[in-house]
Amino acid sequence: MKSKRPLILVTNDDGINAPGIRTLISIVSELGEVFVVAPDRPQSGMGHAITINSTLRIQALNLGSQATEYSCSGTPVDCVKMAINKLMPRKPDLIVSGINHGSNSSINVIYSGTMSAAVEGAIEDIPSIGFSLCNHSIDADFDATKMYVKQICEKVLSESLPSGVCLNVNFPDIKGELIAGVKVCKQAKAMWIEELEERMDPSGKPYYWLTGYFKNQDHGEDTDEWALKNNFISIVPVHIDFTAYHAMQKIKEWKFK
Amino acid sequence: MKSKRPLILVTNDDGINAPGIRTLISIVSELGEVFVVAPDRPQSGMGHAITINSTLRIQALNLGSQATEYSCSGTPVDCVKMAINKLMPRKPDLIVSGINHGSNSSINVIYSGTMSAAVEGAIEDIPSIGFSLCNHSIDADFDATKMYVKQICEKVLSESLPSGVCLNVNFPDIKGELIAGVKVCKQAKAMWIEELEERMDPSGKPYYWLTGYFKNQDHGEDTDEWALKNNFISIVPVHIDFTAYHAMQKIKEWKFK
Repeated sequence: MKSKRPLILVTNDDGINAPGIRTLISIVSELGEVFVVAPDRPQSGMGHAITINSTLRIQALNLGSQATEYSCSGTPVDCVKMAINKLMPRKPDLIVSGINHGSNSSINVIYSGTMSAAVEGAIEDIPSIGFSLCNHSIDADFDATKMYVKQICEKVLSESLPSGVCLNVNFPDIKGELIAGVKVCKQAKAMWIEELEERMDPSGKPYYWLTGYFKNQDHGEDTDEWALKNNFISIVPVHIDFTAYHAMQKIKEWKFK
Repeated sequence: MKSKRPLILVTNDDGINAPGIRTLISIVSELGEVFVVAPDRPQSGMGHAITINSTLRIQALNLGSQATEYSCSGTPVDCVKMAINKLMPRKPDLIVSGINHGSNSSINVIYSGTMSAAVEGAIEDIPSIGFSLCNHSIDADFDATKMYVKQICEKVLSESLPSGVCLNVNFPDIKGELIAGVKVCKQAKAMWIEELEERMDPSGKPYYWLTGYFKNQDHGEDTDEWALKNNFISIVPVHIDFTAYHAMQKIKEWKFK
């Protein structure tokens, strides 16, 4: 007897119409029954934000896929909560988020709405994966990602993931034949050097755009940044216990009055 | 010769007028020169969100403190970026965030704007602390927190913190004389059980409030939840490397075509 097809939730942070999520929907439709709950507009940089001081709206959509699709007015994490707790017939067997237009390697995991959706899946103990391509453009070419996205999803469906762990998968922006392979690696130590660009509004009052550039401070060859620079697909397992165990002993020695 | 007084950045997620941040400003004013950049309205649940699809505004304020104060239209993380990269005369020696009205223990660290401000400090390699009181009320009594907040800040100023580590400090909602002490502990495994409350708008269309209850799944006595339940102040060191090192080997064994 054929086993039941897995139920797969798809979300992202670029919005339900982004080419990246449309690609992802078409890939995972080969693997199971697909349910989409994704933001109705771009929600990049939303991190693990949730909507608690405002209300949420949902809208059933028919965008021509085989999937059941809803847009949601909230953040990527709201989308996961809405899907699991309100819209889906049962808990999904897999959550996939992306494919993000732009890298979510290294420190970007913290700011990324794409990855926060996967992290929310890990909190719910559902195997979850965030996929990103190192190309911000709306015209990004997702072709090379397809066979790997499918294989990684198949592995997670068959092998599962440890409790509280999700995957952060990033693709170098190169043609498929140039991909050197898949590297399981750690999050590189890196940061953004911010520049707050000041402009004047028509009434002469200043406003600011948050901008800046990415700085990799990590020269290790075991990092996602190294992997991507060397044409590998990077997989970083990400967990939801943020405790810095290595720092506990020192702080335990502090005496308080 | 007296050494230069430390420069301390204060922010929060409840907004610049919240009693919790006013208390924190008054405590740390005894320790150094204080600079405040805090949201102009409540930003709870914003996680590590940053403002990239919209602009930021700042407003110099005089709220009667000794501190230099600005409100900012953005998230707590935006406030830290704005402070460090635009407003402050130099990098601060310490960042403190809070005192939050409500717990940020266990899994709440991921959703918390208060803690994300501290995490942003850790990314910038600035010693940073998030303080929270387990009482959501606007009338919460912060009295018992004062001597401990001061001592913890003094310790961090004198001893510093390991690179990439900040502190998540939570106070039980009890009178000072009942506090059992300070416990350095790990983040409890816990989650929110969501209920999306459906209501109808005047035109008969549904909208939703994200609500729910907190469920501690962790019965360990080494956790922040245990500490708080047993009248201890909890300190969890939090780090910015989310790599699940324990999961790497298993995933490295996966073969891809």
